[in-house]
Amino acid sequence: MSTGAPPAGRPVALRWDGRTLHLLDQTLLPFREEWLALTGAADTAAAIRRLAVRGAPLIGVAAAYGLAMEVAAQPGLGALERGAEVLRDARPTAVNLAHAVDRVHAACLASGPATIAGVARGTAQGLHAEEDAASAAIAEAGADRLAGARRILTICNTGALATGGEGSALAVIRALHRRAAGADDTAAVEVLACETRPLLQGARLTVWELDRAGIPCTLIADGAAAGLLARGAADAVIVGCDRVAANGDVANKVGTYGLALAAREAGVPFLVAGPTSTIDPATPDGAAIEIEERDPDEVRQVLGTPITLGRVAVRNPAFDVTPAALVTALVTERGVAEPVDRAAVAQLLAPALDVRR
Amino acid sequence: MSTGAPPAGRPVALRWDGRTLHLLDQTLLPFREEWLALTGAADTAAAIRRLAVRGAPLIGVAAAYGLAMEVAAQPGLGALERGAEVLRDARPTAVNLAHAVDRVHAACLASGPATIAGVARGTAQGLHAEEDAASAAIAEAGADRLAGARRILTICNTGALATGGEGSALAVIRALHRRAAGADDTAAVEVLACETRPLLQGARLTVWELDRAGIPCTLIADGAAAGLLARGAADAVIVGCDRVAANGDVANKVGTYGLALAAREAGVPFLVAGPTSTIDPATPDGAAIEIEERDPDEVRQVLGTPITLGRVAVRNPAFDVTPAALVTALVTERGVAEPVDRAAVAQLLAPALDVRR
Repeated sequence: MSTGAPPAGRPVALRWDGRTLHLLDQTLLPFREEWLALTGAADTAAAIRRLAVRGAPLIGVAAAYGLAMEVAAQPGLGALERGAEVLRDARPTAVNLAHAVDRVHAACLASGPATIAGVARGTAQGLHAEEDAASAAIAEAGADRLAGARRILTICNTGALATGGEGSALAVIRALHRRAAGADDTAAVEVLACETRPLLQGARLTVWELDRAGIPCTLIADGAAAGLLARGAADAVIVGCDRVAANGDVANKVGTYGLALAAREAGVPFLVAGPTSTIDPATPDGAAIEIEERDPDEVRQVLGTPITLGRVAVRNPAFDVTPAALVTALVTERGVAEPVDRAAVAQLLAPALDVRR
Repeated sequence: MSTGAPPAGRPVALRWDGRTLHLLDQTLLPFREEWLALTGAADTAAAIRRLAVRGAPLIGVAAAYGLAMEVAAQPGLGALERGAEVLRDARPTAVNLAHAVDRVHAACLASGPATIAGVARGTAQGLHAEEDAASAAIAEAGADRLAGARRILTICNTGALATGGEGSALAVIRALHRRAAGADDTAAVEVLACETRPLLQGARLTVWELDRAGIPCTLIADGAAAGLLARGAADAVIVGCDRVAANGDVANKVGTYGLALAAREAGVPFLVAGPTSTIDPATPDGAAIEIEERDPDEVRQVLGTPITLGRVAVRNPAFDVTPAALVTALVTERGVAEPVDRAAVAQLLAPALDVRR
């Protein structure tokens, strides 16, 4: 089911009205803004599978609400188990998804039949609120670190379309923009957005978010970034992250590593922003991160238009690894690691370990 | 006028039958192979303008034949002057085009009315033969330098579709492939081809040329190159060049500079291949090279399909500059400069200066 209702207030890609989950269908952006109204585990799982909702944190929030709606409709253990299974299977490699489903599932098991629906809803809302808070904390910490930077280069989409809140790297850019606009309207932030082949999250999603936010944005081909950095076109580069290893090596959208090399050569800071949940202490370094190879047709086609011979071989790594030594600073909701190394990463995780004790 | 006649023998994008110029229409590749039959200056200029023929050396050859056909049809000074003007104006920034037209023009002025048609044809054929010979010499010099390399990464199209002969960087790859196939059929060359946004010369043209040549080719998004190089996916990178400054700095297709940074970091050689006519002793260094900014719609669209909001700002530099220090070797028809610096570049040009004395 789809509605044309736009969300009110700050940018969101997901809205919970207490009973129904409203999701902006990202497959149609930037050309059409349609909202899906989801009511249970099956349709939420389907939306995740077909990438109507994407971005690891946002997928987790959507799945938590999906399970909560399922349990509210059928408050029993059977619906809980079936719902959890269909949601976990929607994208098996997304760790945030499994963690979110597990958390709602565990809370439901610990509650009685009379309270299960309320507990499930409350757990999903709590997870959503945590993502919002992490996003806001990342935004402020990153804006502190980049104070004075005006021209920022980024890749992929790391905004409200990827998280429960305003995003990671794009949230930092928004915070910088708010501060600049507050101080002096003429000194607002400008963004250089890499189009981000193959799936064009920069051209489709980041451009759309910045357009709505009124933040000046200039789109570039991915290959143009290094030369523009060399010619002084940006004051800083900031990107998100898909996984951070224990030594600070960063797996992120393919193309990120090349930006880090070019930023070092140009002498501009290269920042990585993300919640500490993205840090995986069990992964010792970047070499231990398996790089997912995706469908060759993502490269052979652009939005369904063939660009080459259908029979050509393709390599389509979804991510690359940027060594910690190339990362100027790692910005999280618990603070900034700089320089980025094993000790600094361990320090970021330390408070959580303390709490668990 | 178009015909479906394929060329015989080795790969060509341009064929001269003694009276008519046959050009492969590159705007239709790789989906359709149609040949244009051109008969004068006006239709040749139109083919150059709409990029049916591209690549600086190939444009020069086409323009020389265009003027020769014009003069053969109307053997007088009026036709010579009008033809030269319409051809020079077809792409005013292409130096090879102006040089080729000037050469045919000067030869015609030096001949009498009875011989002008033959002189014009002979001059065009001579220029074509020189381009062929330069291409062949580059191929062998590059293959000598890269002896043993099997997995080669490249960008853009630098093959028969860009020159009178087999190309520059792609000609080196072809020569490596011939040698490898001669030595041992199982050890043939493999090419990693960057798609080359915005105009996709890699995905459309290089993939098509290598497919026809039977050389294994794997297409990648431009942003994937750095990470793949870091993971050991290529033994060498080789690219063409649009202009080489006196100090060895290289202007080439946007994206080249990022490849050079990634090659250095991966410890693989980064070669630049091109005729010495590409070296401009009047340009002291890369900073003196003006970078052409092209139509924003090249980035906003892919083969006519919109990929972003139509109102988004765009930067679309056609080239970037790779400092000489990042270039392992410069391969020309007069030999290989290694390391690449002002003295080595001057040495490459020295024989030509001697001849002119």
